[in-house]
Amino acid sequence: MENITCNLSTSHVEVEQIRNHIGEAVKIHGIVYKIREMSGFAFVILKTKKALLQCVYSQEFSSFELAALKENMSVVITGEVINDERSRTGIEVRLIDFICLSAPVDETPVVINNKEVAATIDTLLDYRPITLRNAKERAIFQIQAGICRGLRKFLDENGFTEIHSPKIVFSGAEGGANIFKLDYFGREAYLTQSPQFYKRIMVGVFERVYEIAPVFRAEKHDTSRHINEYTSVDFEIGFIESFYEIMQLETRMLSETLDFLRKHYSEEITLLKVDIPTITEIPAVTFNEAKELIASTYKRKITDFEDFEPEEEKLLCDLVKKQTGSDFVFVTHYKALKRPFYAMNTPQNPEVTESFDLLFRGMEITTGGQRIHDYNEQVAKMQSRGMNVEAFNKYLMAHKYGLPPHGGLGIGLERLTAKLIGFQNVRHATMFPRDINRLEP
Amino acid sequence: MENITCNLSTSHVEVEQIRNHIGEAVKIHGIVYKIREMSGFAFVILKTKKALLQCVYSQEFSSFELAALKENMSVVITGEVINDERSRTGIEVRLIDFICLSAPVDETPVVINNKEVAATIDTLLDYRPITLRNAKERAIFQIQAGICRGLRKFLDENGFTEIHSPKIVFSGAEGGANIFKLDYFGREAYLTQSPQFYKRIMVGVFERVYEIAPVFRAEKHDTSRHINEYTSVDFEIGFIESFYEIMQLETRMLSETLDFLRKHYSEEITLLKVDIPTITEIPAVTFNEAKELIASTYKRKITDFEDFEPEEEKLLCDLVKKQTGSDFVFVTHYKALKRPFYAMNTPQNPEVTESFDLLFRGMEITTGGQRIHDYNEQVAKMQSRGMNVEAFNKYLMAHKYGLPPHGGLGIGLERLTAKLIGFQNVRHATMFPRDINRLEP
Repeated sequence: MENITCNLSTSHVEVEQIRNHIGEAVKIHGIVYKIREMSGFAFVILKTKKALLQCVYSQEFSSFELAALKENMSVVITGEVINDERSRTGIEVRLIDFICLSAPVDETPVVINNKEVAATIDTLLDYRPITLRNAKERAIFQIQAGICRGLRKFLDENGFTEIHSPKIVFSGAEGGANIFKLDYFGREAYLTQSPQFYKRIMVGVFERVYEIAPVFRAEKHDTSRHINEYTSVDFEIGFIESFYEIMQLETRMLSETLDFLRKHYSEEITLLKVDIPTITEIPAVTFNEAKELIASTYKRKITDFEDFEPEEEKLLCDLVKKQTGSDFVFVTHYKALKRPFYAMNTPQNPEVTESFDLLFRGMEITTGGQRIHDYNEQVAKMQSRGMNVEAFNKYLMAHKYGLPPHGGLGIGLERLTAKLIGFQNVRHATMFPRDINRLEP
Repeated sequence: MENITCNLSTSHVEVEQIRNHIGEAVKIHGIVYKIREMSGFAFVILKTKKALLQCVYSQEFSSFELAALKENMSVVITGEVINDERSRTGIEVRLIDFICLSAPVDETPVVINNKEVAATIDTLLDYRPITLRNAKERAIFQIQAGICRGLRKFLDENGFTEIHSPKIVFSGAEGGANIFKLDYFGREAYLTQSPQFYKRIMVGVFERVYEIAPVFRAEKHDTSRHINEYTSVDFEIGFIESFYEIMQLETRMLSETLDFLRKHYSEEITLLKVDIPTITEIPAVTFNEAKELIASTYKRKITDFEDFEPEEEKLLCDLVKKQTGSDFVFVTHYKALKRPFYAMNTPQNPEVTESFDLLFRGMEITTGGQRIHDYNEQVAKMQSRGMNVEAFNKYLMAHKYGLPPHGGLGIGLERLTAKLIGFQNVRHATMFPRDINRLEP
């Protein structure tokens, strides 16, 4: 390998600016993604921040030996930028020379530079630090980052304030045993299952709040739908008249977020062949109606009257898709027994709650609803469930000193990403998943 | 209280639109912040999403008894919007009527509607769900939300991809004993001290990445500078020539973020009398120079040659402020002994590292530096420290298969907010702080 003097401060350009340098020789950095030898020349694909850049090696214009260049080397190449319609980006770089900044010590144990990483999901995840380098794999998380940008843009523009609530908490928000415990300087503490308590406290402060942050569920399920740590997109708003306002706001938020993706992530959408749905209105059915609809349409017996089986969520989505064309469906009025102590009962029928889930392509991606804001009503519901009200004094402070009618929702970011792209297993849309068997990498 | 029919769907306006309704009667919602009786009339201050709205009660135009209205009630008021230059916002609302949506069951045990919450920090934090409702208290966190918006805007516009790394990890990133342990389905796991490993892995994927997320330190310090869970603003970039590029990028990022605040948070800045510094260039000194400078200027003996005492950070900042006018100062080349195993040693002097801290108004708010990218160099440094290299195999995978030269930083969001606003104690800028004595609320 010939080392040339590479003066980074003069002609080194960031890949985003490359189109301004057609016909010029520039220096550009990246990681060698793939070397494909043809007869008499070679394609050298360079992985840059967000796209692959097609470079061409030929002894006609390249002043080094091709063998000196290795896949997974970090390099600064010197090359001439050419318009070439045959390349995907319309640009090609003729390699003149390169310097190596960092070299791998070995070949990757999994092939990462084909169109897909041909591996089981376990291998894919075991080798995550390198399999994520695959162009399609990383595009999943570019889209995920785009979803977050789109969501935050909507929320920031609609009067929400971002909050940062603690993840180490004194009590579970959602009840149940699926909570991680830790020793906190000799006291028992927990990892938060949701920012529920805090976002509701903050409704009394800012009226509209949101948080995109990790939550933790110690569920022992080992399914394609569950992971034990996930990113929850939470918002909560005050002064609602009913939980339908939350559903309307979510509809607008998702619609604008998908528009944002279409506009800013078209390359990733094309690469992954993502079918981005257009949202105008999302149909809604009550839980009981949905149960009966599924039973009658598919001639299934209802065995669980309190909750959906995963298969039922799929069937309902299929049905709604066929009948209305919508990839989304709201299910409302879940059973009070199955919802937490803070869920507001429906006045006309206290066996059900002012709550909803949003199903998307066969999977629940959102849980939301109106919460109890009245102090006495909240205390009464807690007592009726045999809860130790005293233990929640700090949380009930918000109610005691006046909390507006309010509600909100939580969206599983990984589930939303997975279903958008078309994965059955939520792990495909989780950068470094944590499940009952997986704590690494 | 007279209940009037309040048709929310017709003339109910969001507070952001109120200026478009001058001279009109509108419905507007909020929480009664303060009732101040004057002779013959009363001021009723309504707390809305981001500002206080001055309303006036008078039997001349109000159709209800003032006694029916209570502080901390959530209400929808009907009132006429009037231009009034004497009010802070230039707007005043003449109360015609109101309906109560939610009422407190008691008066607050701490006065929250004066200019300041006159309480010790312990009381302030014990009653956080209500003390945060104070206009100045909540403005702190509006500014914090604004900082995050400004930072993300800069990062999104500069080629970074946002990542979500796991908080439950198999090993500490920073070493040392200050790590929270938890039982993970029978295995020992930890809460992350920093997203260090993951953001560096992701440099091999996206070249530039960032994350704004909680980190956890089980430090037993009980000081005004430490909390046990904080929000870390992390970024990491590939293809750097030296760690000075990280410092330059941070300088630009902070400068643009403060500009963003000036532009979009002027009301909060005025309310809190925040002195937002203008950043052009940030001076830099080496750690050894700084130590000597402090010793000679203040006639202090150097007792710790490896690290700063908190008092020295203050003195250095005072000195730099006097000499250059800058509120910020970079300190570079910290001792290798005091930096983690992944810090790159300075080639000319391996006792120090290619690292820096950023001090702001007397406190360290950032730690950053160049990391070791070469696999063999990293393994050698780990071995020289007696570390079990095998245990880090999954993490070293990124190095083994090629990682560009890179570095990055972590900023403590609460510290940055605290010092910007002028607090000595970082808890003032933490929504719900966690420390050795505090796990609630």
